[in-house]
Amino acid sequence: MTEQSTATAFVPGHVTGFFSAHRTDDPATTGSRGAGLTLSDGVRVTVTPAERTRVALDGQRVEMAPVERVLDGVGQTASVTVDSDLPVGAGFGVSGAAALGTALASNTAFGGARSENDLVELAHVAEVVSGTGLGDVVAQARGGVPIRVEPGAPGVGELDGVPASTRVEYVTFGELSTPDVIEGDTTRLTRAGETALEQLRAEPTLPTLMRCSRQFAVGADLLVSEVETAIDAVQEEGGEAAMAMLGRSVFAVGTGLSDAGYDPAVCETYPSGAHLCGQR
Amino acid sequence: MTEQSTATAFVPGHVTGFFSAHRTDDPATTGSRGAGLTLSDGVRVTVTPAERTRVALDGQRVEMAPVERVLDGVGQTASVTVDSDLPVGAGFGVSGAAALGTALASNTAFGGARSENDLVELAHVAEVVSGTGLGDVVAQARGGVPIRVEPGAPGVGELDGVPASTRVEYVTFGELSTPDVIEGDTTRLTRAGETALEQLRAEPTLPTLMRCSRQFAVGADLLVSEVETAIDAVQEEGGEAAMAMLGRSVFAVGTGLSDAGYDPAVCETYPSGAHLCGQR
Repeated sequence: MTEQSTATAFVPGHVTGFFSAHRTDDPATTGSRGAGLTLSDGVRVTVTPAERTRVALDGQRVEMAPVERVLDGVGQTASVTVDSDLPVGAGFGVSGAAALGTALASNTAFGGARSENDLVELAHVAEVVSGTGLGDVVAQARGGVPIRVEPGAPGVGELDGVPASTRVEYVTFGELSTPDVIEGDTTRLTRAGETALEQLRAEPTLPTLMRCSRQFAVGADLLVSEVETAIDAVQEEGGEAAMAMLGRSVFAVGTGLSDAGYDPAVCETYPSGAHLCGQR
Repeated sequence: MTEQSTATAFVPGHVTGFFSAHRTDDPATTGSRGAGLTLSDGVRVTVTPAERTRVALDGQRVEMAPVERVLDGVGQTASVTVDSDLPVGAGFGVSGAAALGTALASNTAFGGARSENDLVELAHVAEVVSGTGLGDVVAQARGGVPIRVEPGAPGVGELDGVPASTRVEYVTFGELSTPDVIEGDTTRLTRAGETALEQLRAEPTLPTLMRCSRQFAVGADLLVSEVETAIDAVQEEGGEAAMAMLGRSVFAVGTGLSDAGYDPAVCETYPSGAHLCGQR
């Protein structure tokens, strides 16, 4: 296990329906409570040991602070290729996925001996310190329909899940800056998120998750007009939709967006957390 | 979500390589520490509401105490169909899988509103009270290569994982009674299991897991002759194999058993925990 090689990990996408922000002076215990869906559309991350670190996202050289922080954490340099099924900056957890995929793949590529919880913590801390997210990494490490019951990395945070699997449709109208929201005043947002979590934990079903998410978007004052229009259109057709936090994006269960006349991307909830690929 | 319908869940198989037994006066906090592999060969459980509870395993009417206890726990009666890729009573966690699959599928079939952690606890308690296992359920709910760091149901127990995926081969030479072992004197077994866990946590890799498992089988005095012969044969070919606890079974990573001239069943580690199927 000490030779160096190329390794690839798959990380599911993650849309958050509602959340509350919880900051401490330690990034491992900083995080969010909330809930959302992990998606079969996700991110493949390939790590190859190299003299200098370079990151490519869908074929383009980019700076990705969470990825670079993960590599700093393992004390290595590598060529990292991130291939995403999902739009970037639109609320699908691509930065968290890139960080977590880099952690998993680099452990294998460099013959490391960290446990999965350690690698999830490394990626969570990288994401929190970079200001790109608070809860995607732990949700993406779990899979399914994660409920973030307590914030933070494994050993501190606690997760549960809604026992459900479903077709998911989504459309995006553009980016929304995660740092602008989560590094600003989150008092109102957190109050709305805590209320939603209480309701979901009392009845952990998909319809409740979707309803709580819609109420959160309004209560936290995050709803943008194109998103509101799409959610209303889905509801008029009897479907269930909500806003992906944080992006100008809408996700629906079943055929909600198609029924409302949109041309959505289609995937499913993903039963598995992030995992290594193809080591047979 | 209140109408009644048929629902199906898939639960991966689970071979334990080593374990220690931890009993309290509460089945939710009773359990085992240890580690093993979850398998893409597993168990499909279909639950259909019915006047009286009936359980069929691979087409045969059977009594399965853990399944019946789960249904008692949800206060329902149902026809339960258990289809297993794996041999029963041979150390592959079929009873735990049947209990966990029944919990997940019955929640959907009866329009229940329990969270995943609650359903895992229900199945874990049913398995512990039935004397059929101590740690398969929580491992099967997680997927991957689970390390049971602290014993017990979610909220009490703690899990980590070895970040690895691999082809797995297995052969079985017959049954070994789980109750006979785990309800007897487990002092020696637990001492060997705790030592193995300490070593694996210091270096959470597959080769370490396999080596600790072999040492455990000897230290706990559980090795049976056909199993010992097969493990030795795999090692002579440079492979890695260990005994499935608790069964007269051997599992190997990669092509270990084929290389040694056996005709094994072949599957892979399973990245996902137990999940509902086919609700599109």
